Amino acid sequence: MKAKAADRVLKNLEAAAGNGLLDRRAFLRGGAALTAAMSGYASAAPLAEDPWSRAPGGTVPAYGTPSRFEKGVARTLSNPGGEARTHHARTPHQLLQGSTTPNGLHFVISHAGDPDIDPGAHRLAIHGLVRRPLVFTLDALARYPMVSRASFVECGGNSAPLFSPSPVQASVQALHGLASCAEWTGVMLSTLLEETGVDPKAKWLLAEGADAPHLSRSVPLAEALDDAMIALYQNGERLMPGNGYPMRLLLPGWEGNMNVKWLRRLKLVEAPAMSYYEARTYAPILPGGKAWQFYFLQEVKSFITHPSPGLELKGPGFYEISGIAYSGNGRISKVMVSADGGASWAQAALQEPVLAKAFTRFRIPWSWNGAPATLQSRAWDEAGNSQPTRAQIVALRGETAKPPPVTAFPSQHYNGPTSWAIEASGGVRHVYA
Amino acid sequence: MKAKAADRVLKNLEAAAGNGLLDRRAFLRGGAALTAAMSGYASAAPLAEDPWSRAPGGTVPAYGTPSRFEKGVARTLSNPGGEARTHHARTPHQLLQGSTTPNGLHFVISHAGDPDIDPGAHRLAIHGLVRRPLVFTLDALARYPMVSRASFVECGGNSAPLFSPSPVQASVQALHGLASCAEWTGVMLSTLLEETGVDPKAKWLLAEGADAPHLSRSVPLAEALDDAMIALYQNGERLMPGNGYPMRLLLPGWEGNMNVKWLRRLKLVEAPAMSYYEARTYAPILPGGKAWQFYFLQEVKSFITHPSPGLELKGPGFYEISGIAYSGNGRISKVMVSADGGASWAQAALQEPVLAKAFTRFRIPWSWNGAPATLQSRAWDEAGNSQPTRAQIVALRGETAKPPPVTAFPSQHYNGPTSWAIEASGGVRHVYA
Repeated sequence: MKAKAADRVLKNLEAAAGNGLLDRRAFLRGGAALTAAMSGYASAAPLAEDPWSRAPGGTVPAYGTPSRFEKGVARTLSNPGGEARTHHARTPHQLLQGSTTPNGLHFVISHAGDPDIDPGAHRLAIHGLVRRPLVFTLDALARYPMVSRASFVECGGNSAPLFSPSPVQASVQALHGLASCAEWTGVMLSTLLEETGVDPKAKWLLAEGADAPHLSRSVPLAEALDDAMIALYQNGERLMPGNGYPMRLLLPGWEGNMNVKWLRRLKLVEAPAMSYYEARTYAPILPGGKAWQFYFLQEVKSFITHPSPGLELKGPGFYEISGIAYSGNGRISKVMVSADGGASWAQAALQEPVLAKAFTRFRIPWSWNGAPATLQSRAWDEAGNSQPTRAQIVALRGETAKPPPVTAFPSQHYNGPTSWAIEASGGVRHVYA
Repeated sequence: MKAKAADRVLKNLEAAAGNGLLDRRAFLRGGAALTAAMSGYASAAPLAEDPWSRAPGGTVPAYGTPSRFEKGVARTLSNPGGEARTHHARTPHQLLQGSTTPNGLHFVISHAGDPDIDPGAHRLAIHGLVRRPLVFTLDALARYPMVSRASFVECGGNSAPLFSPSPVQASVQALHGLASCAEWTGVMLSTLLEETGVDPKAKWLLAEGADAPHLSRSVPLAEALDDAMIALYQNGERLMPGNGYPMRLLLPGWEGNMNVKWLRRLKLVEAPAMSYYEARTYAPILPGGKAWQFYFLQEVKSFITHPSPGLELKGPGFYEISGIAYSGNGRISKVMVSADGGASWAQAALQEPVLAKAFTRFRIPWSWNGAPATLQSRAWDEAGNSQPTRAQIVALRGETAKPPPVTAFPSQHYNGPTSWAIEASGGVRHVYA
C-alpha cells in the first residue's frame, strides 16, 4: 500500500533520472503528499509528558559532550589497547550530516600514539637554506596575522578496501573514514618564510613532527609559498591532541601524512630528503615494479553516506540520498547520482557555500519503489577532473593480493566510485557496479 | 629598544589609521623586518628532545577531547551546583579563533538544566490551525530533504553588563559569551508545513520545548516560512544536550530563546500566545514604563577578542587585532577599528566566506608603541545598519540601577561598541570611550 502511495506521488513529481531520482525543486513544491508514503506518523494526539519533562534536567557542564544516547557515534579504532603500532581512528560519516567534522570525530592516524605536548615548552624551528634561522614559541606565533579556512584532510590510504578484488562488506566509516573536514586557523607559512628569508637554492622543505617516530615528509617549496598554513586552531578551539596539538602543517588538498602533526621543524633543502615515510611507508610498488612516490594531491572523490551499509531503508517511499564530495584541486563543480547502477544519472544539489578543498554535501530526493536498486555518485571539480572508474584505477595500480604482475598491496589514493546495492528488504550492501 | 625597532618597521609600512593601525596588505609585504620587534625568538639551535618525543604517546580515543593543557578553555558557569534556577554557560571568545564555536563550548542558557531526552521516544507535533496535524519521530524527519547553514545564536541578554553606568571589569567571555556560531543541519520548517498544510487564519506559531518549564515562544508565521529550520545536527554531529538535543527550532538571526530547544510542539495560532517567557522574562520595562515585547532581531554587533581583558600584551611591537562581527539582518559588509578611542578608523579584513547571519572574523595588524591606547570596533551589515553608540542605546532603554525615570534592569539587546584600554603595562581594561 505504501509503495502504491509512493507511485502516486511520483506521478506528480518530475523525474530527474531513472529508478526514482527526483528533481529537488519539484520535490519541494510537491511535498504535500509525501507523508502518505512515509512511516512514523500519526495524527497529533495530546503529547505525553515524558520523564524528562517532569523534573529539572542535568547541570550544564563547563565543556559539553554529546548525549549518552549518542555513544555509538564514535570513531572505530584499529588499536584500542595502545599497542606499539599505528593507531587509526575513523570518522563515522554514516552518522554525521553537513560538511563539518566535529573535533571529537575527526579521523586520526598516529604512528606511535598521540604525544602529550606541553604547549609552553614546544618550539617550531625554521632553518636550513634560510637567511636567518628562527625558533617560534606558540606565544610568538599568536602575534602574526592569522587566516581561517575550511579544508579536508584525507589519508592517502583512505578507501584502500576498494582495491580488493571483491567488494568488502563494511560501513562507509570503514571504507572512507580516513577523511574529515574542519575550519583551521593559523599563520600562513609564507608569512613565516618572509621572516626567515629563503635562500634561492631552496626547492623543498622537510617537515618533521615531535611525535616519537619524528614523522617527516618533503614538501615542494612552491606549495609552501602558496596556501600552506601552520594550523593552531580546529573549528575554533586549539587542535585536538590526535590532530597535531599544539600545531600542524596544513597543506590543503594534499595527502594527510604530509600535513605533519605536532610540527617542530621545517628545514629548507635542495632536494627531497627521502625520509622513511616517503621512501617506504607511502611509496607503494606499482604493477611493473616501480615505486610510486611523491604523489601529493587527493584527487576528486565522492561517496554516498545516506543510505549506506548499516542504515537500512524502512520500506518503500521517499528518502534523501546524501553524501560528501571533495577535491584537492579546488571546488566541486558537479555531483551526479545514479539509482540504476549507472544507466542514468541526475545532478544532485550542492550545499552552499561550496568551498575549495573542503567537504561539499550533496543531496537528491529519491522515491524508492521497493525493488533492488544500485546507488552511485560521481563528482567533478572546477579543474575539470572527474572520478575515474574502478577498472581504470586497478589497471594502473593493481588489486590487493592478486599474483604477478601485480604488487602485494595497492592501498593508496583510490578515488573511484562507491556503489551501494539496496536490497528488497531495505538492507544496503557494498557492490562493484 | 623593542619599541624603537617597532618604530623603524612602522616607517616602512603604510599606516591605515592613527596610533599604529596598519594596512593588512602592506603588513604582509613588509613582514621581513617584524621579528626585530617581537619577543620569543632565538636563532635555531639543535632542538631539544622533549619527553613526548622520546616515548610512544597515548592511545587514540573513540571520541577526542582537548589536550589536558587546555582545561582552562571552558565555559564559565552561573550555576555549577545545579540549583533550581537558570543555568548560563558562556563561550570563551578570548581563547578561540576563526568563526566556528566548537560544540563543547557553545553557549547554553537552560532554565531548568539540560533534559536527558531519549531520542527514540521524543516526538515533534505540528497542530492547531493546520489542515492535518502530524507527529514526527526523529526517524521520520531523517527522510526529508535537509539543508545546512552556518548561523549564530545569541541570547537577547548577551552583553547586558554594558548597561551598567560604569564599565564592568570582566573578560569578553563574561561580557559577550552568550553568543556562538555553528553549522546547523536539519529540515526546513516550511517543508513540514507543506506536509501539514496551513489554515489561512494562522498568523503565528507557538513553539514549545520538552524541558521541565516547557519554555514557549510565539513566532510570526512569515518567519517560519522563510528560513526557520528544525535543526538536528550541530557542526556535523547531533545537537549537544544543552543546545536542544535531539531537535531545536533555529530562527537564524533572531534572539536566542525563540530558537526553542528540545522542541516538541508547534501550534499554529492567530495571535501571540503571551507565554510566560515572552510576557514576563523577555519583556523588559522601558524608560516611561512600557514593556518592550516581541523584539526579534539580533542587530549588527562586533567586539574585539584579541587583545581583550586577560590577554596581556607582552611589550611594544606588532599584534593582530581580531574579533567577531555578526548581524541578524544578513552579511557583515564592513568592520572599522580604532586604536585611538574613535579619533581615527581603519577598515579591517573580513575572513571569507562572509555568510549571512553567521560569525565573521575580522582582523587588522597593529604596531603598539607602548603608550596607553583605546581599541574599539564598529560593524556594518549589508542592510546598511551599523552599531549605535552606547549613549544612543541608554537613551532609549536606560541604565542598570539608576533611579526614575529609568527602569530597574535593562538587559536586552545591547549592540553598541565595546572599548578596551591598553595600559602601558600591557594590561587590558574595559572602558567606555
